[in-house]
Amino acid sequence: MDKQKQDELKKEAATKAAMMVERDSVLGVGTGSTVAFFIDALGKRKEEENFSLKHIVTTSNRSKKQLESLGFKVDELSDIDQADLTVDGADRVDNELNGIKGGGGALTLEKNVAINSKKIIWIVDESKLVDRLGDFPLPVEVLPISCEQNFRRFQEEGLKPQWRLDENGNRYVTHYGNYIIDLAIDPIPVPHALADYLDHTVGVVEHGLFLDMCDEVIIAHSNGEIEEKKR
Amino acid sequence: MDKQKQDELKKEAATKAAMMVERDSVLGVGTGSTVAFFIDALGKRKEEENFSLKHIVTTSNRSKKQLESLGFKVDELSDIDQADLTVDGADRVDNELNGIKGGGGALTLEKNVAINSKKIIWIVDESKLVDRLGDFPLPVEVLPISCEQNFRRFQEEGLKPQWRLDENGNRYVTHYGNYIIDLAIDPIPVPHALADYLDHTVGVVEHGLFLDMCDEVIIAHSNGEIEEKKR
Repeated sequence: MDKQKQDELKKEAATKAAMMVERDSVLGVGTGSTVAFFIDALGKRKEEENFSLKHIVTTSNRSKKQLESLGFKVDELSDIDQADLTVDGADRVDNELNGIKGGGGALTLEKNVAINSKKIIWIVDESKLVDRLGDFPLPVEVLPISCEQNFRRFQEEGLKPQWRLDENGNRYVTHYGNYIIDLAIDPIPVPHALADYLDHTVGVVEHGLFLDMCDEVIIAHSNGEIEEKKR
Repeated sequence: MDKQKQDELKKEAATKAAMMVERDSVLGVGTGSTVAFFIDALGKRKEEENFSLKHIVTTSNRSKKQLESLGFKVDELSDIDQADLTVDGADRVDNELNGIKGGGGALTLEKNVAINSKKIIWIVDESKLVDRLGDFPLPVEVLPISCEQNFRRFQEEGLKPQWRLDENGNRYVTHYGNYIIDLAIDPIPVPHALADYLDHTVGVVEHGLFLDMCDEVIIAHSNGEIEEKKR
């Protein structure tokens, strides 16, 4: 599929999600190419329907700037109680709407926004669908202090750890001053068990397994179909 | 008991711990008034027995400076594989050698050193002993981004959260730029269950429950007895 066709499909899925946002609600907004179309669609609703929101929080500066350029005021997560709805993308989604996120490195912020949302919708194109989670390295944000020990530990546990590097070949540093270890295990056997292990691992700040969180996925299929899948 | 007498007892317990450190081993050193005596005792061994260590890592700048003033070279945790032994204090210890740590605010560093140690010895005076963990607010280090939500969550769960404040009445900021919420629940019912809950709470970096980690406690009793208690 060419990029133009793909963008049209993403745009259609994003517009569908934008129509699901309730007027004067509290909205969480993620990041990514499809989410950028979602923000555009929100801006269109603002213009055409005098649509407004009570609060908006985002998971990236990019989304924040785009929202502000459209006249939306963006708040911090600490300013709100919780979001009524968060719309985000995902790197992989399985049949039960469990996902891998954090390819962009913002998994900690993304999970903190997600966990404080009443409802979560992910917009993805069909290339993100998998039968079982995997096919994408699982990001794990680790404190630098014990990162060497945790890297070796992951290696010994057969999790195929790889340091996330930046464009200069140095270790990628997150917004919080930590490193990311990508686990290349594929597929991930028993994702819930791995999430539990990572939650208990001292030195792990957050990981990219988003399990039992997403309520609905809007999928842009390459055949032109826009599918809505609910948990 | 007067302070001089108490210090003598702490010193005796600390000296006992210092004698347990094996020559040319890798040592983790914690923080606190009793640990300061322990470091002094290490210095004495260095002087009198030509005692040396392969590596030393610490959980505070204070201990680092004291060790360096005695001629020991201090390494980073990332420089070593794991410590053969870590000697530290504890804020409370129960009968099963489970403890609360982090009164000084360095719980994350302390737990990362602890988890990467083959053996752990805590030196305490008898005022730290409890039948059941409690009698001391449990420190929880939280990311600022979702700290308000987590504070409310802890409140709703009946965990009696309190913001840790600095000397100016502002929120205490950890070495990692995070806040500390002290949970004043007392006693802590089912510490393992609470640790599990906190491990799974998004936005929690680390907590002060040190369970199933300590191998031996050296206790300075007010009657002059030095007790060694093993797990």
